[in-house]
Order: sequence, then C-alpha cells, then structure tokens
Amino acid sequence: MGERQALACLRRLMPPPPPGEVWAGDDAAVVQLPASSGLLLLASDCLVVGLDADLRLTTLADLGWKAMAVNLSDIAAMGGRPLHAVVSVVGLNVQQLEELYSGLLSAASHYSCPVVGGDLSSGREGVVNVAVTGWVDGPPVLRSGARPGDAIWVTGLLGAAAAGLRLLQAQRQEAPAELVLAHARPRAALAEGQVARRSGASAMIDVSDGLAADLEKLAESSGVGFDLDEERLPVAPGATLDEALGGGDDYVLVFTARPDKDMHAAFRATGLAPPYRVGSCTPELSQRTLGGRAFVAPGWEHPL
Amino acid sequence: MGERQALACLRRLMPPPPPGEVWAGDDAAVVQLPASSGLLLLASDCLVVGLDADLRLTTLADLGWKAMAVNLSDIAAMGGRPLHAVVSVVGLNVQQLEELYSGLLSAASHYSCPVVGGDLSSGREGVVNVAVTGWVDGPPVLRSGARPGDAIWVTGLLGAAAAGLRLLQAQRQEAPAELVLAHARPRAALAEGQVARRSGASAMIDVSDGLAADLEKLAESSGVGFDLDEERLPVAPGATLDEALGGGDDYVLVFTARPDKDMHAAFRATGLAPPYRVGSCTPELSQRTLGGRAFVAPGWEHPL
Repeated sequence: MGERQALACLRRLMPPPPPGEVWAGDDAAVVQLPASSGLLLLASDCLVVGLDADLRLTTLADLGWKAMAVNLSDIAAMGGRPLHAVVSVVGLNVQQLEELYSGLLSAASHYSCPVVGGDLSSGREGVVNVAVTGWVDGPPVLRSGARPGDAIWVTGLLGAAAAGLRLLQAQRQEAPAELVLAHARPRAALAEGQVARRSGASAMIDVSDGLAADLEKLAESSGVGFDLDEERLPVAPGATLDEALGGGDDYVLVFTARPDKDMHAAFRATGLAPPYRVGSCTPELSQRTLGGRAFVAPGWEHPL
Repeated sequence: MGERQALACLRRLMPPPPPGEVWAGDDAAVVQLPASSGLLLLASDCLVVGLDADLRLTTLADLGWKAMAVNLSDIAAMGGRPLHAVVSVVGLNVQQLEELYSGLLSAASHYSCPVVGGDLSSGREGVVNVAVTGWVDGPPVLRSGARPGDAIWVTGLLGAAAAGLRLLQAQRQEAPAELVLAHARPRAALAEGQVARRSGASAMIDVSDGLAADLEKLAESSGVGFDLDEERLPVAPGATLDEALGGGDDYVLVFTARPDKDMHAAFRATGLAPPYRVGSCTPELSQRTLGGRAFVAPGWEHPL
C-alpha cells in the first residue's frame, strides 16, 4: 500500500474538522485560533537520510535546507506566509547535527521562518522532521477550488530537480549548476503563492511528486479533468519532457484561475517572474490529456 | 555528547528571539502571532520504537497515546491549553499505523487536541514525531521564574511510571494496574498546569527525565538551588525513592510559587487533587539537597 492509500485510511479514523477549517488532505492544515482574525496553517514533513537524500551526492547541509524548503512549499501552496518552525532530528551525531543545522538555519533565515524549538533523539537511521506554522489573513487557496474552464498555471521551470539528480548520479562534472541546485537546494515559492492567492487563484498545490501526479490530486479534489498543452510546458533547459511531467521535487506551484484572469500582469506588477499558462481544466472528471492525447501520469509515490 | 549538550550547541547557532518570545530552552516555544492577543505555544517530541517504547511490553496503541501525551505535557508545563497536533510517522506498515493511530486519536480526543495533518514515510526504524500547538491568554510559566524562598510543588505521585516499567520487565503478572498504566498511558497534567499558572506559579517544568533532573533544569534556568523534604515526597505506592527521584516518564508537573501562596486551596477550588509541597528554592546556586544532605541526581539523559 502506498502513502496516499495509507493517508486515506488514517483520514477515515479522524473526526471531521469544524466549519472553516481544513485538516488532512491539502498541502497544509488550516485552523482557527482563539482571539485571532487570521487563520493558522500547519504542515509537517519528514525526510529520511538515504531515502529522501543520497549523502553521496548532496550534503547534510543540503538536506537541512531541503527539510525546511519542502515544508515552506506547503505553506506557499496555501498562499500563506511562514511563521515558525520546530525541528526533530533522530540518529545524527553532533558534528552531523551542526552540518544539518547550517542548511536548516540558512533556509530559516532566507525565508524568515525561524526555528524556535524541537527535539533530538538517538536512532539507527537519520530522520529529520520539520513542522511549520504559517498565516493567511483570509481564505487560503485549497486544492478543491478549480472549475471546468479554469486556466492552469505553473510558477517556474519543470524537471530541473530531476535532471539535476540524474546528472549527479551520472557523476557528470559539467552538470549545469542551476540543475544541481534545483535538486540540492529547492526554492519554496512563497512570494508566488501569496500573489496567486491575492490575484484570485481558484486552486493550488505544490509540485513535489511531479506536475502530472500533483495536478491529478488537485483535479481529483476539485472534481475536474485537465488538458495540458505540451508546447507551453516550461521544461527546464537540460531536462526531458518526462522529467518535467513526472520528476519530483521541483517545488514550483501549479494553480488554477478563471480564464480571464491576467496572471502575467499580476505577477509582473509585484516584480516576480511571470507564470506559465500550461493548460485548462475540463468538465470530464477522468480526463488527463496532453495536447488532447491521454497520458499516464509518470509521478511517483513513496512505498510504505 | 548527550542530548542536553547537543541542544546547547545548536542553540548557539540560532538567532535570539524577539522580546516577549521564548524559543529553545523551555518546555515549549512561545511566539507571537499577527493580529492576535494571546501567545502561541509550539512543542515537538519524537519517539523511537525500541528506544522510547519496548513493544514486547507495551503496544503500538500505547506508543501512540504516549507520543501525544509527552507533547501535551510540554504545553501543560507552560500553563497552556492544547490546540492542534500534526503527526509524522516513519517505518510502520498500514496495520501498525492503524494501531498507533488508535492510541494517538484516543489521546487527541481525551485532551481535545485534534490531529489535523502530518506525513508518512518508509524507513528502517519506527519513528513517531508529534508537533503540537497550544495557547496562553497571558504570560506562560517559564522555567526561569523561581526565586530563593519559593516553595516547590509537584502535582502528582512520583516514580509510578518507572515502577510500572520495572514490573513489566520482570513479567510480574500481579503488577498493580495503576503502575503499569502510568508507564503505558501517561497523563498530561493540562488542568493542573493551567491552575498553577492562574494561581501564580513562578516557574514550572514537566517531569519527563525524573524529578531531580528536571528540577535541576528549572533551578539552573532560574538561578536558584533547592532542598527537598524526603518525608513529603509523594512516592507512588509500589515505587522506590530512587524511582521517585530519578525515574523518568512521570509527566507530573513540578512548579514553584511564593511561600505564602496556598496552592492546596487553589487546586481544591477547581476540583483537582491538591499538589504536594516537597521543598524550597534556596539562594545557593549549587545546592541540591534532600533533607539538607547533598545527593546526586539519578536522572537520565538520552545519549545521541
């Protein structure tokens, strides 16, 4: 059984959230607080050394950066801004901890999300868990708001992280730095997520498992199908189409908006690189097409 | 190097918190939020199967309960009330996850702290990480507020969890249920922590590593010494004095208050069992005495 099925199984054991809150099933949980007008976002992601990072290819500092970035990407995908992080680490010695923390704290500083506490434990395997809080002043952008006819946008190049990993694995010395960095030090698209929310995005998710797999989750939550335009996909230079569609770890955002929304202009007005319009949502629930032809999502899922 | 030294090491890498916030170094972090009058508490604790729980003696459901309870105990030790939890699990299959979650969700329901999200991953070793948020309407009770002359109180019996573990390890069939339960299903003293805060407790910590070791942390943070009265220590029936002083996992609270505060009356007024007055804070920083005689804290610490 894969992660997704197991999560669905656990979700059935959990009570339903009160009105106005979102618990499991989106990028981050959305909860109300006493005596507060905004909404708190909560996300938690854990990385396992050897499984989520090959320390022959990248460093523990990279892993620390990535552990923060993947959580911040969940906050970005709700249109939120990050507040604070707590970090638990299992199975690393003090020298390894210091290296991990150099990357963790760089990301914390870069994204203004200080690490405020956590826990350490011994163990036979290295595990880094980060939990983050975030904030939205109004309704966050959920996965479930897309409607047939909505345009589909992505906020950056696709396939770069997968291509970077491929080049590192092949020990290509001349591997382009931007591809290697996309794998080793992924960006969290926080500014992009906030602009998308303010500009009326109808649904949003971050690309962690690959565009096709993550767009599939958004489409399922929203009850729509989708058609992608192959010629408009922003395949990163040096990456393949398969890497762009199915390579994980890109951490760009994919969002939808009514077709008349000028998201180019909205992004440009804030100084951000404009997003790419890559397709449309369709009324046919089961439709997953690329230029009108059916394709099987090459996305991947952690086995449990 | 032990956990405490490693944490101190990491703390030096972290920037200092802004005024009014507490980051690493107390039971939970205390942070401000946008547009909110209260303070958010954040804590994260992780349990490793085999290290923090022996599954030959207790169940995965017990581990799930304990993973929630130890985090809630951190919120209790600030005088806060819990809000929400996120849970990450590594290295358990779906059947094991369901068993773990039966205990986790029992504790979540019992303590009104719903699990709102989390993460699952494969791995070679079972790890359960829980991060919780909590709330205080005013200043939380820190470890650092004790003053010489303050009375020292504990909210419940000591040594029960250690005695329960000892009896389970010895396979004593007739082991008293309350000792076994104290080990398998520890309580989080949330109501007690809130009453202590409202009644003017000056410092507080939860007893996770043993009374002596945890009181030592409180004394160090506050810059006081302490003298305990052996005859007043509420040793759980069936536990030894060493287990009461040094046995971990009791999760009662130890707090201090000005000597004229009638904490008995304050607790009784809310229907809670009255706390035990077990000693006093002294001006001599290095003093750790039991009935006036020096003793070495038998508390323990995870090696890393």
